[in-house]
Amino acid sequence: MLVTDLINVRYLSGFTGSAGALLVYADDRAPVLATDGRYRTQAARQAPDLHLAIERSGARHLIGEAAAAGARRVGFEAHVVTVDQFDALAAALPATATERPVELVRASNTVEALREVKDAGEVALLRLACEAADAALTDLVERGGLRPGRSERHVARELEALMLDHGADAPSFETIVAAGPHSAIPHHRPTDAVLAAGDFVKIDFGALVAGYHSDMTRTFVLGPPADWQREIYAVVEAAQRAGREALRPGAQLREVDAAARTVIGEAGYAETFGHGLGHGVGLRIHEAPGINATADGTLLAGAVVTVEPGVYLADRGGVRIEDTLVVGGGPSAPAGTPPDLLTRFPKELTIL
Amino acid sequence: MLVTDLINVRYLSGFTGSAGALLVYADDRAPVLATDGRYRTQAARQAPDLHLAIERSGARHLIGEAAAAGARRVGFEAHVVTVDQFDALAAALPATATERPVELVRASNTVEALREVKDAGEVALLRLACEAADAALTDLVERGGLRPGRSERHVARELEALMLDHGADAPSFETIVAAGPHSAIPHHRPTDAVLAAGDFVKIDFGALVAGYHSDMTRTFVLGPPADWQREIYAVVEAAQRAGREALRPGAQLREVDAAARTVIGEAGYAETFGHGLGHGVGLRIHEAPGINATADGTLLAGAVVTVEPGVYLADRGGVRIEDTLVVGGGPSAPAGTPPDLLTRFPKELTIL
Repeated sequence: MLVTDLINVRYLSGFTGSAGALLVYADDRAPVLATDGRYRTQAARQAPDLHLAIERSGARHLIGEAAAAGARRVGFEAHVVTVDQFDALAAALPATATERPVELVRASNTVEALREVKDAGEVALLRLACEAADAALTDLVERGGLRPGRSERHVARELEALMLDHGADAPSFETIVAAGPHSAIPHHRPTDAVLAAGDFVKIDFGALVAGYHSDMTRTFVLGPPADWQREIYAVVEAAQRAGREALRPGAQLREVDAAARTVIGEAGYAETFGHGLGHGVGLRIHEAPGINATADGTLLAGAVVTVEPGVYLADRGGVRIEDTLVVGGGPSAPAGTPPDLLTRFPKELTIL
Repeated sequence: MLVTDLINVRYLSGFTGSAGALLVYADDRAPVLATDGRYRTQAARQAPDLHLAIERSGARHLIGEAAAAGARRVGFEAHVVTVDQFDALAAALPATATERPVELVRASNTVEALREVKDAGEVALLRLACEAADAALTDLVERGGLRPGRSERHVARELEALMLDHGADAPSFETIVAAGPHSAIPHHRPTDAVLAAGDFVKIDFGALVAGYHSDMTRTFVLGPPADWQREIYAVVEAAQRAGREALRPGAQLREVDAAARTVIGEAGYAETFGHGLGHGVGLRIHEAPGINATADGTLLAGAVVTVEPGVYLADRGGVRIEDTLVVGGGPSAPAGTPPDLLTRFPKELTIL
């Protein structure tokens, strides 16, 4: 199989360069990592057990190598390879007059499926990423960073700087700080809008540590909450708890979604929760499994997923509460182990 | 033509959402913009002259729409569309038994070619982005931000914060701050390494303003420079000037590269300059045209490009000087207009 998605190359080989491709054999021959001359030293250091090919056109070179090695079928990542790239790969195959033609076979999401269950080392990095985010938000609140008069953009910038102070390599995605009516927009980009007394402030953010992403949302209220704010906060809090409690190895993904969605629906807010309940998180901020109303499949022990229901009242405000958890406590934890909560920042309504 | 690259959709329609596709007819029928329900209001506001289709599977819907409108050939972006996406598009075509089959035609880099020449509005935004970067670097130097004892990471973070203060929406790419021996690595990521007296400090960074990217590199020296530092700085400065002076509408791209490369070669440093001279910049940080030794084609009036030669002495230090310029002063400037320099920060050797 030819692996060209760089995150998948990294997952399988350990190589983190910005250009490369990997050829993996079905038998026990050593995989071949192709990259360009800039990465000769780095590739040898990060992937010492692999054969290394220094080639500018790495994927095409590897197709030729597979054919020369006698491969008859070579899988490729049809969800990543563009039509133009496919044409180039097909052109790199030996002429069809050869005795043993090589067939390119669609093998989409093969490596992504492997990535769904995290091993102990991956969980350790995700835990570090979540801890950096927890610590940064704690600092932000303790130093009074969430107060009327500050702009969404300033809050986002300060939170990102605090994550770096706590060991993050970078934010894991563009930080969302959404105040007042903006909190009703599920994915709002921070603006120069200023936090005001009475506002909900919704913060969705994460840290990147050694390639692994954390993801957490908390919603605060500035000053005494109105009744409607208390009400929707309580609904989301209960829905989020129900979602977390439904995280069991073997659970149907859509039933996990339903566990939280039912709470919101029974409170009369079904129409306001327009997104899925959660998603896997790891080397990408969004990866398998998707947890939503139309998802097929089941939760696997060792998957790391978010649980993030929300209620959004247009032009008034919204609440989302999101955690990242390890399903079943990990891939090798005893049966019945509850999910391991990686994002530890408190979830009760915090009045600032 | 079906446009699915989001930057190209934005360029043609003005729509900046994170999901969408555009169908453009060869005749004067209004283009159709497809996006999902989250973006109904935004799409109508940003692209008021277009037909709007609210569809989750936008590209497939548009293929069906084109077929229903009688199209026989529909171009698609084969450099962007994956093999899986192509299969889905092909499956969305009407059954082949129809009287008028629809053919999907590769149309790679069609919109990218249009994007190469910037109009006055685009140049204005690029100018703002470059001004934000200039002002941030000026502030950083004036407040003593480049001094022994500070880490590369701290300098990068401060420079990024200053760009935001000067109106940037974000950094335009990951800021490079490379001190001492690190300056010999063309694309170095900032570390906790500390600036020291005698170091070169190479800073490659830019600002993002309304989707447009600036790109500039300056190299400083901390304290009195050694002879070898003065020498390679002078070589790069001369090469960079030669490159800028070669920027003329109609010039062969590889001759522009050669104009700078020759200066470095004649000084005996040819082997140390291992990358291309420059690239276009606009809605992406790297876009057409590439200016390098193997490029085909010529410079167009109104292209906005970088000129960024470097000399890198492994384990000692390196110098790169990079500007962003508008070729021929703009697409409608009189013939013979010199390039318009957008990055105005001084280029003479600055001793801090």
